[in-house]
Amino acid sequence: MAKDFVTRSENYSEWYNELVVRADLAENSAVRGCMVIKPYGYAIWEKMQRALDDMFKETGHQNAYFPLFIPKSYFEKEAEHVEGFAKECAIVTHHRLRAKSDKTGLEPDPEAKLEEELIIRPTSETIIWDTFRGWIKSYRDLPILCNQWANVVRWEMRTRMFLRTTEFLWQEGHTAHETKKEAIEETEKMLEVYAYFAENFMAMPVLKGYKSPNERFAGALDTYCIEALMQDGRALQAGTSHFLGQNFAKAFDVKFLSKENKLEYVWATSWGVSTRLMGALIMTHSDDEGLVLPPKLAPIQVVIIPISKGDKQKAMVDEVANTIVAELKAKGISVKYDDRDSYKPGWKFNEYEFKGVPIRVTVGARDLDKGLVEVARRDNLTKESLPIDGVSDIIEKLLDNIQENLYNRAIRFREENSREVDIWEDFVVEIEKGGFLYCHWDGTPETEEKIKELTKATIRCIPLDAKTEEGKCILTGKPSYKRVVFAKAY
Amino acid sequence: MAKDFVTRSENYSEWYNELVVRADLAENSAVRGCMVIKPYGYAIWEKMQRALDDMFKETGHQNAYFPLFIPKSYFEKEAEHVEGFAKECAIVTHHRLRAKSDKTGLEPDPEAKLEEELIIRPTSETIIWDTFRGWIKSYRDLPILCNQWANVVRWEMRTRMFLRTTEFLWQEGHTAHETKKEAIEETEKMLEVYAYFAENFMAMPVLKGYKSPNERFAGALDTYCIEALMQDGRALQAGTSHFLGQNFAKAFDVKFLSKENKLEYVWATSWGVSTRLMGALIMTHSDDEGLVLPPKLAPIQVVIIPISKGDKQKAMVDEVANTIVAELKAKGISVKYDDRDSYKPGWKFNEYEFKGVPIRVTVGARDLDKGLVEVARRDNLTKESLPIDGVSDIIEKLLDNIQENLYNRAIRFREENSREVDIWEDFVVEIEKGGFLYCHWDGTPETEEKIKELTKATIRCIPLDAKTEEGKCILTGKPSYKRVVFAKAY
Repeated sequence: MAKDFVTRSENYSEWYNELVVRADLAENSAVRGCMVIKPYGYAIWEKMQRALDDMFKETGHQNAYFPLFIPKSYFEKEAEHVEGFAKECAIVTHHRLRAKSDKTGLEPDPEAKLEEELIIRPTSETIIWDTFRGWIKSYRDLPILCNQWANVVRWEMRTRMFLRTTEFLWQEGHTAHETKKEAIEETEKMLEVYAYFAENFMAMPVLKGYKSPNERFAGALDTYCIEALMQDGRALQAGTSHFLGQNFAKAFDVKFLSKENKLEYVWATSWGVSTRLMGALIMTHSDDEGLVLPPKLAPIQVVIIPISKGDKQKAMVDEVANTIVAELKAKGISVKYDDRDSYKPGWKFNEYEFKGVPIRVTVGARDLDKGLVEVARRDNLTKESLPIDGVSDIIEKLLDNIQENLYNRAIRFREENSREVDIWEDFVVEIEKGGFLYCHWDGTPETEEKIKELTKATIRCIPLDAKTEEGKCILTGKPSYKRVVFAKAY
Repeated sequence: MAKDFVTRSENYSEWYNELVVRADLAENSAVRGCMVIKPYGYAIWEKMQRALDDMFKETGHQNAYFPLFIPKSYFEKEAEHVEGFAKECAIVTHHRLRAKSDKTGLEPDPEAKLEEELIIRPTSETIIWDTFRGWIKSYRDLPILCNQWANVVRWEMRTRMFLRTTEFLWQEGHTAHETKKEAIEETEKMLEVYAYFAENFMAMPVLKGYKSPNERFAGALDTYCIEALMQDGRALQAGTSHFLGQNFAKAFDVKFLSKENKLEYVWATSWGVSTRLMGALIMTHSDDEGLVLPPKLAPIQVVIIPISKGDKQKAMVDEVANTIVAELKAKGISVKYDDRDSYKPGWKFNEYEFKGVPIRVTVGARDLDKGLVEVARRDNLTKESLPIDGVSDIIEKLLDNIQENLYNRAIRFREENSREVDIWEDFVVEIEKGGFLYCHWDGTPETEEKIKELTKATIRCIPLDAKTEEGKCILTGKPSYKRVVFAKAY
């Protein structure tokens, strides 16, 4: 265990907060609820962005950029949306500061009060659909497949770095379609993209499903989601894809002339993932020694640390290290040779272990005599001595192996923490243990609400692959035909 | 000339505005002074970002992310900075909306008034230096070489798409150093990066120089800049790099323990380019037929348009087109085969010409009989018939050739519009013709101010390569030892 570092079992929440700061991922800023994403954390986010962006483009989407500000009146146009988003938000009311009359500082200039307040976007459906009205005249203008990488602001009362911050970074896809069928297909396609990314890049298994009405996006007809299970047994919603029907087209009067020459409202979707994924990544794999990163998202995949005394040994060690660096780079592996002499090898071991670098190679003068280097893996903390010759090939395979191992470990954890529960008395006990509970539910918002009141658990999703099965609602005993997934959630 | 499209000589300003909209680059949004960057425009910006970001990383910089909001009091800490930036800005005063008592809509909730107003960042020196205080203890923590890609807001009264908008996108580099020398070297290095990017990617020649005190960044000891000349003879500042001395370190109390074990203030730089570069790109190369793009920044480098009648011809044409597509893709060239039958070839010719696609290849059934395709270049509007065999090799060379030609054309234009002027009466006449005027100046802010009052011209820069030469100030006749560059500017 890393020195002075709290363990997950001691205090999971403190473990997370400390890990984020000590691994140099992020820190709280001087601005309430806003974080600073530090270079190491941002480098992971950039890798996520690149992988997602490539997939969005492969599926035909293009990036664009819409204004940060949304006129207040726009939110008033879609009734559910305003309920969900416009209430807790940052409101711009003035556009100029002036010196206070007592010269003690600055204040908003009353003469520069805006006629209509501007809201910092909490999500961009309204401004985007207002824009789409100008872009869409006929079926030939459809589909529109847009995405935006942006910052958004939601005035959260309780914030936690990455998981829930006032300002956060995300991407929001917004698409417009001729038909309902096409829009639903898009919604489902993007859910698959998110699930693929989560499982293949983040090594994080996810359930694919859709939300109960209570948990739907404000303004959506259906919200699909991917749900992951964290190590403390709580669920985390990792991405959502919404079928918006014609709600926003109607609110912003966006119609098109169809192939049949009729004027019809456009069908819409939106979908997003955010820097919250960073929190999910951290909590899925990390351990009491610090961060653990899947190789595909690690900014540094391999770190090489030299151990030598004197110039002669140093020259030998440098030569071997540089050869390995060159070989790894040629394979497209990101490698760092940390030959700073201002820090001791032991300090470096701790540093990179804490930062989750997947593989550490130690090139020590003594081992060199035997033609060996030491290769340590972060995921299971094992190490072995390997011949220098061919070590880069082994490292390449090891990276794949680590990626796979992390995924398998996480899915094993999820399986061990998923179970069917059929009796309310059991539910109350089991939900406290954490994990996914598969239960029957009578399908009413009232029952869901009641269960939340009694246990703080929510329906995380109705799995896409839920099989038809007769049963009785866990709370009311009313008939039910499939199981849904309950959990306490982040 | 494109139909219905105003020419540069008729109305340059209208030509620009129309071009931006009709080439699908951007449009004004419903929010005052804010634009929507459309997918085609954003794709060009993404190419710029990628090229710049690669260069930043090659020179050792890392990306990070700092909050959108800056507490009002932060601006009050650096006296010049507040004068320059905090006055015309977006001010957040509330964090919740409530229903109006008469139920006619929403209003800021008086109970959710912020204790301290938050300013949307117009630039991030203050919040970043407040953060750096926690990161820097000793010389071992230095240098810090950070960059951020972000949106910023400056409440401009008169806005123009890309050139001056209330919200814009940019990158801002912020670095911290042990010594003055190192900070100045960094400032100069980043100026070189910008100049390299402008000339080699944008095909836009730039003057490298530094600003007179009047034109310096608010809070800087020295502002270096690159200046470009637009086709209407006006100058455009395309990028700046600031040596900030210890101003921000003193304002935010950022000290480090030096190698000599002394507590010293940290030295700073900052540097940025923005979506304004899009305006510079457009105005440097485009013509009366629409947008002209240098191949290195064109989202589509080659478009292929088929002409055929009937299925049999179509099959032949498709086969040849697809072969060329495959060959170009293998060379890493971005190519689009536009075989939509909902648009006629003539419409497509106009469309891609207006959008500045560097090369158009027409694959026509008739030409195929002779083994030929038609290759048209956008830069000089010439076209020629070429044998299908080997055409992709020719296109590859042609792209380089177009990139070079655009640069040469722009530098020729600048040379033709640069001259030395020594007499005030001439200056008054020449400045109205546009271009760069190389003149002697007595070095005082008063003289510069007076010249601006009389002619609207400003000192664009004091060129880095200005040679020592005795002369007399263009206005006052006082002694001067080098020429500076005057122009009217965007």
